[in-house]
Amino acid sequence: METIHRNENQMKIQRAVRAPLKNDPTYRISISRLEKNIIELGKIGRSEADGGVYRMAFTQADLEARKWLLNKIEEIGLVGSFDGAMNVFGVDDRAKTKSSFLIGSHLDSVPKAGVLDGPLGVLAALECMQVIRENNIPLKENLELVATSDEEGRFGGMLGAEAICGEITLDRIRKAKDVQGNKLEDCMRAVGFDPQMIMSAQRHRQNLSGYLELHIEQGPVLERQNCDIGVVESISGIFHWKVNLIGEANHSGTTPMNMRKDAFQGLCEFAGEIPRILEENGSDQARATIGKVELKPPSPHTVPGNVEFSLVARDFTQDGLEELEFATRKALSAISRRRGLKFEFEELSSIEPTLCDQKIIHAIETQAKKQGVSYMRMPSGAGHDGQFFGKYMPAGMIFIPSLNGVSHSPDEWSSLEHIEKGTNLMLQTILALIGKQPSSGHHSK
Amino acid sequence: METIHRNENQMKIQRAVRAPLKNDPTYRISISRLEKNIIELGKIGRSEADGGVYRMAFTQADLEARKWLLNKIEEIGLVGSFDGAMNVFGVDDRAKTKSSFLIGSHLDSVPKAGVLDGPLGVLAALECMQVIRENNIPLKENLELVATSDEEGRFGGMLGAEAICGEITLDRIRKAKDVQGNKLEDCMRAVGFDPQMIMSAQRHRQNLSGYLELHIEQGPVLERQNCDIGVVESISGIFHWKVNLIGEANHSGTTPMNMRKDAFQGLCEFAGEIPRILEENGSDQARATIGKVELKPPSPHTVPGNVEFSLVARDFTQDGLEELEFATRKALSAISRRRGLKFEFEELSSIEPTLCDQKIIHAIETQAKKQGVSYMRMPSGAGHDGQFFGKYMPAGMIFIPSLNGVSHSPDEWSSLEHIEKGTNLMLQTILALIGKQPSSGHHSK
Repeated sequence: METIHRNENQMKIQRAVRAPLKNDPTYRISISRLEKNIIELGKIGRSEADGGVYRMAFTQADLEARKWLLNKIEEIGLVGSFDGAMNVFGVDDRAKTKSSFLIGSHLDSVPKAGVLDGPLGVLAALECMQVIRENNIPLKENLELVATSDEEGRFGGMLGAEAICGEITLDRIRKAKDVQGNKLEDCMRAVGFDPQMIMSAQRHRQNLSGYLELHIEQGPVLERQNCDIGVVESISGIFHWKVNLIGEANHSGTTPMNMRKDAFQGLCEFAGEIPRILEENGSDQARATIGKVELKPPSPHTVPGNVEFSLVARDFTQDGLEELEFATRKALSAISRRRGLKFEFEELSSIEPTLCDQKIIHAIETQAKKQGVSYMRMPSGAGHDGQFFGKYMPAGMIFIPSLNGVSHSPDEWSSLEHIEKGTNLMLQTILALIGKQPSSGHHSK
Repeated sequence: METIHRNENQMKIQRAVRAPLKNDPTYRISISRLEKNIIELGKIGRSEADGGVYRMAFTQADLEARKWLLNKIEEIGLVGSFDGAMNVFGVDDRAKTKSSFLIGSHLDSVPKAGVLDGPLGVLAALECMQVIRENNIPLKENLELVATSDEEGRFGGMLGAEAICGEITLDRIRKAKDVQGNKLEDCMRAVGFDPQMIMSAQRHRQNLSGYLELHIEQGPVLERQNCDIGVVESISGIFHWKVNLIGEANHSGTTPMNMRKDAFQGLCEFAGEIPRILEENGSDQARATIGKVELKPPSPHTVPGNVEFSLVARDFTQDGLEELEFATRKALSAISRRRGLKFEFEELSSIEPTLCDQKIIHAIETQAKKQGVSYMRMPSGAGHDGQFFGKYMPAGMIFIPSLNGVSHSPDEWSSLEHIEKGTNLMLQTILALIGKQPSSGHHSK
């Protein structure tokens, strides 16, 4: 049923042969209800001017979305609540266990966002909980919806998930500011939350048995591979450097080519070495990007004396990232030495990669095969709450294709077909992981 | 006495062996008087805050400097005047010829300038005229000091020199604006000049027999070669392009390296080809610079979808420039095709190269040998009034070394020794070109 091969892109593909559904599971999500919720929630914080969603963490729009969700949770007969970090929870506690299995995603957005990045995972989880509740499907364990706060990192990191995992300090809370200089404390108070209470959001590790999230891929791979589902194996680690190359600003007319110390040419040489660095180091999924470049002075008639640029590198093992760091430093040193430049760098942030749980990966794949949806294992290049949850408890992620690979844009979309396939797969995976073994005939009501 | 070799920089050097002065010329400039004038003029428009000179064309400071010069011209017994383009002239018309030989430079400056770029050439010319006048040295032709206006191109091109050469149109005058959007017409009126009168500044070609200018090199070559004098052979032509490379903005984490259309990587590949393009095309003095780069969007976490950059290329023959243009387009096309990018370019400006006059070059070299100063022929990579004058009449330029190659900065300087050597060389060159052959013994008063 399963083939393993390497495609021309050297990506490891595990693709199920689409099989006819042999044992159609009884329980199916309602795509029309889910679509209605996506549209309704997508209106909160949306700008008429550009069609983008502006639901940045701890804004009124963010609060409004969370209240909307709490209302939905209560409508389906569950108990909803905020924690101190403005995470929203909704519990199906019929199993009466001490521990919960978490499902969900985040509700906050970047500025000018689409309607799926985050909300889809929350609403898919809500839909699964509603189906389970309506059908009174017995569970071995409490099932808990979570809508995390500030996954998009307005105040650095992923505040809601980190708070749940006990990774926040009071010092960080006091110092946290967004890029405009607004303080986290002020923003939280403005929406009625006490920032000190973030600390109270920590959940005991033994009370959390796992985490499952549905998310759009935010990249082009599934669409290009014509594949329904990405089974996330790992969430990339990252290092983000600010690099300064310092040469000599000179008159572009009077300075012969061989007397220049052109900082920008140094950067270009380094940029040209990125493919080699990635081929020689890290995994074949490693990525590196120069996305921000500032020449000083920025003048057409001046040989650039100084260039500051960003380097963001990602890989899926810590060893890989360390190899990339080392190779990058060697390349920058050699180029600088050869060109008479100086180089300085500052590590702005660094996150270790996170592996997804093998048991959850296996459960997703088994259910995908049963449902006859095509799937492939893949890494997540983008960051997700699962990065933090995955170090605290077993975690897994299901990706569905992004239209044209677009995200963080009003153009962000995924087809309803993929949303439906992904959410049904999520439902079946939850039941496989924590559903009570049905008595014979139970699934064919 | 003369050797020709290629140094390790592949620059063509013609260096005189320093010889003891055999026939010390009678007439010598006064370096202390010249220094005093440099200091006095350097105070006009100077900022206390940063030490820079702010004497941009058609400002009050520019006008003040010109009035200061007129006063100096009259102090030495010559007739001074403005023309309609705010060029200042001072004539030694003892020869009573219809035609004049011009010497001088410009008085306007870029913002935060040094005290030498322009003013040195004007004050050296003034010093030469004073020596000639004081000693009543007979001339075959009228000698005329010129201090041109707007050589630094505040309103585009080199307004004063172009006006003298009849290259200005009323349409251009009406449309001319500086980078802040100030209109030339308004700025001229504010200092008491009628912009329409710029047209009247044209001089008849047959009344101008030549042009000689002393200028700082504004580059590192003479200093590195430990050479006193640069004899300018040609003033570079230039093309200035604004180039746009258009790819696809994508998430830097979710987009595999081989699915990217990274516009900045395209630019870097092109930048890396610049040395090859210059080696294969144009002269060995060709230069090309990328000095301004703008990534859109400028975000560390986004694969750059668009990059706009400046390309300024210079060479000393029109054929060379055309080869460079052609090769640049081929390189950008190939890179764009290979990387799935689009490229667009706009030519913002283009100036043909100008050759200096062989007779003037020869006169400078002959006098340099006589005075025992070391010299080398060199191109001028920077633009100068001579670019326009050289197409209208025979023109020549004398360069002296710039300290650390620095220009357009308060740090701009040249040693008094070089200023003195250059100005004496200028005096002797003027006398060689238009001095009356002395009767025997005349030079040993």
